[in-house]
Amino acid sequence: MLYPSVNSSCIRVLRSTLKTTLKFKSFSTSQPTLSTASSTNPNFVKIVEVGPRDGLQNEPKPIPPPIKAELINRLAIAGMRNIEAGSFVSPKWVPQMAGTAEVLALIDSFPKTGYSVLVPNQKGLDDLLEILSTSTSPNSHAKPPPPVTEVAIFTSATDAFSLANTNVSVSGSLERLAPVARRALDAGLKVRGYVSVVVTCPFSGRVDPRRVRDVSRELAQMGCYEVSLGDTTGAGTPASILGMLEEVAKEVDIGILAGHFHDTNGTATANIMTALDFGLRTFDASVGGLGGCPYSPGATGNVATEDVIYALTGDRLFGDISEPYGNHGKPAKTVQSRWDVGPVDLARLAEIGEWISGVLGRETTSRAGKALLARRKREEYRKRKEGAKL
Amino acid sequence: MLYPSVNSSCIRVLRSTLKTTLKFKSFSTSQPTLSTASSTNPNFVKIVEVGPRDGLQNEPKPIPPPIKAELINRLAIAGMRNIEAGSFVSPKWVPQMAGTAEVLALIDSFPKTGYSVLVPNQKGLDDLLEILSTSTSPNSHAKPPPPVTEVAIFTSATDAFSLANTNVSVSGSLERLAPVARRALDAGLKVRGYVSVVVTCPFSGRVDPRRVRDVSRELAQMGCYEVSLGDTTGAGTPASILGMLEEVAKEVDIGILAGHFHDTNGTATANIMTALDFGLRTFDASVGGLGGCPYSPGATGNVATEDVIYALTGDRLFGDISEPYGNHGKPAKTVQSRWDVGPVDLARLAEIGEWISGVLGRETTSRAGKALLARRKREEYRKRKEGAKL
Repeated sequence: MLYPSVNSSCIRVLRSTLKTTLKFKSFSTSQPTLSTASSTNPNFVKIVEVGPRDGLQNEPKPIPPPIKAELINRLAIAGMRNIEAGSFVSPKWVPQMAGTAEVLALIDSFPKTGYSVLVPNQKGLDDLLEILSTSTSPNSHAKPPPPVTEVAIFTSATDAFSLANTNVSVSGSLERLAPVARRALDAGLKVRGYVSVVVTCPFSGRVDPRRVRDVSRELAQMGCYEVSLGDTTGAGTPASILGMLEEVAKEVDIGILAGHFHDTNGTATANIMTALDFGLRTFDASVGGLGGCPYSPGATGNVATEDVIYALTGDRLFGDISEPYGNHGKPAKTVQSRWDVGPVDLARLAEIGEWISGVLGRETTSRAGKALLARRKREEYRKRKEGAKL
Repeated sequence: MLYPSVNSSCIRVLRSTLKTTLKFKSFSTSQPTLSTASSTNPNFVKIVEVGPRDGLQNEPKPIPPPIKAELINRLAIAGMRNIEAGSFVSPKWVPQMAGTAEVLALIDSFPKTGYSVLVPNQKGLDDLLEILSTSTSPNSHAKPPPPVTEVAIFTSATDAFSLANTNVSVSGSLERLAPVARRALDAGLKVRGYVSVVVTCPFSGRVDPRRVRDVSRELAQMGCYEVSLGDTTGAGTPASILGMLEEVAKEVDIGILAGHFHDTNGTATANIMTALDFGLRTFDASVGGLGGCPYSPGATGNVATEDVIYALTGDRLFGDISEPYGNHGKPAKTVQSRWDVGPVDLARLAEIGEWISGVLGRETTSRAGKALLARRKREEYRKRKEGAKL
């Protein structure tokens, strides 16, 4: 509905709608005592929301910058603290990412949220730096610069995938990326590295974990503070993810690794649990499961943020045991997940996932999101019925 | 297409179609050396296929007995070794389960597959025993008795759920079931027990794990060789499943416990992995994810068998590493799951899930199933294109 005629006045309406519609009872999955958790808490899990970039980039239908900005703002309001906002790639290659400059100009700055932008090469970084420097110029009367503090660069674990994607081998790609990382670091930006196809490659099959290890090490050596391991085909199982991580950890500090798992085969949350057990504490996810897999039409792509948050902290949505049982005297100890994902509001996330999926003309792929919204509808229906009786 | 006019000649056609269409390259997930695995293998995981009963029972659309029988036969051909074939409940309460006697008369006996039937009470058991005894009578010229060697009985972990479902409290339900179990055992049948709502109850919220423990113990004491713990609402997370299992294991041998997890919130495969780590080796699943959740319209119900098989053994679908890498001399060791699910053919399962979902007028909910079928279509398309070039 929103898609065909969106413009900035439409966005203002959207934003005011947002303020009212989001006033429903909030099922925040965080506990007050944990909401200030930092990376010094061993149970803190950092979720990187990649829907606005990696998600939308792989959706067949491009959506206009104002909607993208709205998506990013809603995500920040819902408590997401790390958002990949877009990319500076050639619109000739990825038309879905056209207008990232406009998106950055439209997003609000939520001080607790960090925003990153993907840059494939020097040209992309130049474009970003120009925007950041123009608006920071003391002579400029423009609004403050967009709140981007981080860039992401990407390569892959097989030559076949790298050649198909960027027309260069893996080693050629790393050579091209090193000066990009250097310049971004010099400009005061953090650099995040992506490695694609860490389990299987659609062109060359099963991937050598030693290659994933070496590529990850090289990204770390060129200054990436975080290296995100992408199971791009979603082929990973707990067994193959663990095998890959064991190899990578031989040469790369586990603390800088992130898991970027696709749910193509329904294994993503199981893979995340496996990686958590192994020691990883950062995972990428995409609200509403945005982003299909270009090699599997109709298949699920990125794991849905709602599903990850639910798997980690969903048991907090339910109160204490209420049905009396036996003569035990005191109530059973409530089982509670030890993971802390920060002050994320799962109900808001589910709404956002449903909304943006609707803009794309499809259903959210998040199972937790769908279940939560269905539960809320049932509760509202019950309350209306009860109200009618009074 | 098949649904409106199905009859026995239609079934014959279906069966001959089956024989031809299933001749595609088979992606069996078992290895020859493991196909004879038994429960003495600590890595053997028993999958109980509950689609034809628990799955279809929760689908809004009833399907005719010949189609159900066809489903069961296809599942046995695909390598499923434990199939819940139907139930003897009153068609007044569960119209989807009408005609189980006809289903049993139509299924073929695959000697390596065990078939079970759910009986809610003495009346249901009587109906089953009559069928079994009539056809085993030496004076009977009827075909051999249906290959049912097991009955399933069910109760739940909360009074609220039990009352809503069967109009009796949990303790009342256990009292009713004890003589049913006794009589089934006397008749030489094995007895399996189900406990519903082991994590949350749609009526009374969070469930006391002590109650799950006590109910499981009572089912074991009345002779159940296996007790299946049902996360009926799909609310379970790895944390809450683990907490529940720890409590149950205080009084019940882990070896007799089965996990019956719904994928409503996308946590089922993660929960299965958690339960495997804890020591469980039996899991229920439903081909194509048959069976919604009656309390969550549109939400996913039973975890799809394809997704479980994929999570446990999916890495075997991919060959060895083929892209040359570096000067390492020998290829990297292939990471392989340690789990063995028997001689299950995942590609056939995916076909069955797609077929039966089509009969119900919907898509399969299995992510692994959809991905596998999409991959096969791409490969066939590529081969046709290559063939055209020759």
